[in-house]
Amino acid sequence: MTDVPALVDQHCHGVLRTELGIGTFEARLGGAAGPPAPGTTFFDTQKGFAVRRWCPPLLGLEPHCPPARYLARRRELGALEAGRRLLRGSGISVYLVHTGSGGPLTEPSELTEPSELAAAGAAEAREIVPLELLAERAADASGTVAEFLAGLAEAVHTAAASAVAFTSAAAVRQGLALDPRAPGPGTVRGAAGRWLAGRRTGDRLTDPVLIRHVLWIAVATGLPVQLRLDDGDPLPIADFAAATMGLGADLVLLHGYPHHRRAAQLAGAFPHVYADLGHALVHTGARAAAVLAETLELAPFGKLLFSSGARGLPELHVVAARIFREAVARVLGGFVADGAWARADADRVAGMIAAGNARRIYGLGDGPPESAGQG
Amino acid sequence: MTDVPALVDQHCHGVLRTELGIGTFEARLGGAAGPPAPGTTFFDTQKGFAVRRWCPPLLGLEPHCPPARYLARRRELGALEAGRRLLRGSGISVYLVHTGSGGPLTEPSELTEPSELAAAGAAEAREIVPLELLAERAADASGTVAEFLAGLAEAVHTAAASAVAFTSAAAVRQGLALDPRAPGPGTVRGAAGRWLAGRRTGDRLTDPVLIRHVLWIAVATGLPVQLRLDDGDPLPIADFAAATMGLGADLVLLHGYPHHRRAAQLAGAFPHVYADLGHALVHTGARAAAVLAETLELAPFGKLLFSSGARGLPELHVVAARIFREAVARVLGGFVADGAWARADADRVAGMIAAGNARRIYGLGDGPPESAGQG
Amino acid sequence: MTDVPALVDQHCHGVLRTELGIGTFEARLGGAAGPPAPGTTFFDTQKGFAVRRWCPPLLGLEPHCPPARYLARRRELGALEAGRRLLRGSGISVYLVHTGSGGPLTEPSELTEPSELAAAGAAEAREIVPLELLAERAADASGTVAEFLAGLAEAVHTAAASAVAFTSAAAVRQGLALDPRAPGPGTVRGAAGRWLAGRRTGDRLTDPVLIRHVLWIAVATGLPVQLRLDDGDPLPIADFAAATMGLGADLVLLHGYPHHRRAAQLAGAFPHVYADLGHALVHTGARAAAVLAETLELAPFGKLLFSSGARGLPELHVVAARIFREAVARVLGGFVADGAWARADADRVAGMIAAGNARRIYGLGDGPPESAGQG
Repeated sequence: MTDVPALVDQHCHGVLRTELGIGTFEARLGGAAGPPAPGTTFFDTQKGFAVRRWCPPLLGLEPHCPPARYLARRRELGALEAGRRLLRGSGISVYLVHTGSGGPLTEPSELTEPSELAAAGAAEAREIVPLELLAERAADASGTVAEFLAGLAEAVHTAAASAVAFTSAAAVRQGLALDPRAPGPGTVRGAAGRWLAGRRTGDRLTDPVLIRHVLWIAVATGLPVQLRLDDGDPLPIADFAAATMGLGADLVLLHGYPHHRRAAQLAGAFPHVYADLGHALVHTGARAAAVLAETLELAPFGKLLFSSGARGLPELHVVAARIFREAVARVLGGFVADGAWARADADRVAGMIAAGNARRIYGLGDGPPESAGQG
Repeated sequence: MTDVPALVDQHCHGVLRTELGIGTFEARLGGAAGPPAPGTTFFDTQKGFAVRRWCPPLLGLEPHCPPARYLARRRELGALEAGRRLLRGSGISVYLVHTGSGGPLTEPSELTEPSELAAAGAAEAREIVPLELLAERAADASGTVAEFLAGLAEAVHTAAASAVAFTSAAAVRQGLALDPRAPGPGTVRGAAGRWLAGRRTGDRLTDPVLIRHVLWIAVATGLPVQLRLDDGDPLPIADFAAATMGLGADLVLLHGYPHHRRAAQLAGAFPHVYADLGHALVHTGARAAAVLAETLELAPFGKLLFSSGARGLPELHVVAARIFREAVARVLGGFVADGAWARADADRVAGMIAAGNARRIYGLGDGPPESAGQG
Repeated sequence: MTDVPALVDQHCHGVLRTELGIGTFEARLGGAAGPPAPGTTFFDTQKGFAVRRWCPPLLGLEPHCPPARYLARRRELGALEAGRRLLRGSGISVYLVHTGSGGPLTEPSELTEPSELAAAGAAEAREIVPLELLAERAADASGTVAEFLAGLAEAVHTAAASAVAFTSAAAVRQGLALDPRAPGPGTVRGAAGRWLAGRRTGDRLTDPVLIRHVLWIAVATGLPVQLRLDDGDPLPIADFAAATMGLGADLVLLHGYPHHRRAAQLAGAFPHVYADLGHALVHTGARAAAVLAETLELAPFGKLLFSSGARGLPELHVVAARIFREAVARVLGGFVADGAWARADADRVAGMIAAGNARRIYGLGDGPPESAGQG
């Protein structure tokens, strides 16, 4: 078996503090905008089956037990204790936590802060700051365009002093589709004026010029920037990667599936582009090893990073981590069994993609020596 | 082994009534616009090899026998008897048959009607109505724009009373590429006027406005609408899915390969979107289990449906069904062997994607209880 | 085991004549525009691991030995002798060599001519002529538009008399994106005038009109034309394929990954379109069998061709060939083991994709009878 050390989860969210009924749990599991179709349930997905495989044993139940039984046991233990047992069984030693985030389903106060996640999981936690949020908060606090732009620049640089990375959900879809370049000062002032004039407190940032503006400020700090691809083709990323090469900031591509091979190819083509390995694995469950293997085709092994992408349910942190560890062991072990890879190389690559690459890129230090070799 | 019940084939055509020489058989097998390249044959494809694997034993020959020997035996039995033996060996209990369809290679009278297919296969058959055909027939029968539009609306609603679904081959390519919305009455009248003015009897519908118009009439009936993706990216479908969510009609995506993962993803994102599992399997033959497994990554298991997509040759109905059953047993059995799925879940999912989902969506009833468990 | 005969490499380049230090070797291996990211090396890729697997034994070392040890042994033997040992261990009997090519990293004189490659590899070599180069040379030698256009037409027809194919790296990206059709004489003269007016000797051809013009001249010769898809979607190719069907020239799609399934689909849809199987395999290494299997889904088996795509390092010719042979044996052997294919068919298809299809399309003759069956 290939050894897989304790993981760095390079992108996740906090977990819910409240007790969950089966309906709320299912809705969080599905992560869709609406309810399941009549006659179907979000438990009947690879993700649902994966939760049923990996989580019940951590709460003292048999794998694959019915959802209702699992939820009853979860309530019996209480959300806090269940969360502790789950997170401590995940094999994750560092969480990089997307904080203060938005999205239609989220009330930020529902989710644990990084320090709470660290305590519950007996792990370390660091902060990843969503760029759009900084712009929205700057807008909430500003009366004029000049105040907004100064406040935004200051907020990005302040965040850069404590956070380990920035992240943007809107950049690829809305900001970069038409133009990868930094917008000029006049263009930015015009866009800011229009946005502020029509904006009510709490409105989300959707203006493409301002999204690009804050993205380029972030790049200038030198901190890594995580970019969500979602289901769009990563083509606009290639232009942005070409425009930012040599500026010092790394770009980390999240949510590539089903374009994960293309994301991996971009990680091979540009020295400062990295690709995420983990997020797709939670969703693909029993097929995770196959998806992981595809991502391992073109990306240099020093350019790949694990994340859970989990939000709300500690079950998702667990499932991502367990699936990743098993998939790495299976895929890399298969390469060794075929004679294609040397055993020592497989162990080394497992360490790189589980933790080493993330520690290097996010400046996390080497980690406790005893974490190495925990399979 | 995972049990796979008798199948519902949610999209197929009739079969040819005439005897076939090897050249005609090969042309029907290839399904291409032209002859094979010099020095090649359509038998040297995954589809050709799959026909040679599965069909000769149903006619009393050894698997993989040469095509000429197979065709000789087929003629010896006669097209009718060969068709009966093949269809009854397919394991399909319900055919949803695309009727009256066009396309450059088809003369409708060549192909069996649903009732003939049902009789030959000792199965049930129901009708799926192609939307473009309704528009073409309404145009053939109309003198004015008003007559055409009234006749079209009536034809769609009449069809909805007996058919189990509508289908459109042109919607994704020609109708939705630029705009997913229902065109307004004036726009429709203008497009109808231009089309009728330039049209000769028998001309096919290619006008994007009218294609969208009839599509939206179909959606309003509440019947499921099957949409062919062919080889284009399913991106326009996402906008159409967003526009039709909550209106009551399900959308079933056909022919997704090589974008089947994206189609499966859409089935997960929208409650009323479903994805087809079968059509690609005939074409990919020995690789069908791999393609099926990819489709099983992101789609909820309640959102996947089997079809053969077969047309003209009963061999294609057989091959699709046999390949599907074997692939389901192999892929789901593999998940169970890995410990990723419980055996009971695998059997349940097999039943859903083989027949249960289709019975629910198309309102086909529960099927004979004795059909369950036929592996 | 499936027998795989000696290979025809349908697209490769010459090898470097000079001794290589580890840094130069790594840069050639990476093939990227820049250096590896800090903390990473191009040896930590599937391609790097594949070189370490297959090449050391040909130079008398153990597989997977460290790169420094391999490079030391390579220098000890000398570039010429190492190249001979490597190429003769590749199992390639015919090289189709892209000659005189450019690109930012290339100095043509560095790479061996076809005759040198043939001698080093104890193989046959034939020439493939890059279309853009013919245009650039014609421009270098011409004073006027008329001279340029006449010189270009003559150069293409002269090349067609000795070369076995043309190739274009720019056609898909720059020439066909907007229009697949042959540009008219006036359009061509206008584009030529503008290009020549602004051009300095040695400038590369990037004008889309002229790229299409030379492409259509090449098609008119009837020789096969190899088109690089790179990482773009092969969609523009479909329009060009439709426009050139029946004109007598075959189109061979290179570099399809990650769109190799789409390329294979086009090979099935158009009688004169062929798809390359080899290039992606070097880059995907331990995953090559999986990628090969995907390409074998939709393409007719008579439409697939092997190439190494290798350039500069004879290691890449070796790795491509060895990986291909192993992947063919594994994938086709698996189909036979599953009962999906007959053994005799698998052997026949292996011969087709390894050499037979290329021999037929490029008019290479049947090859030595003793080459058949060398597994």
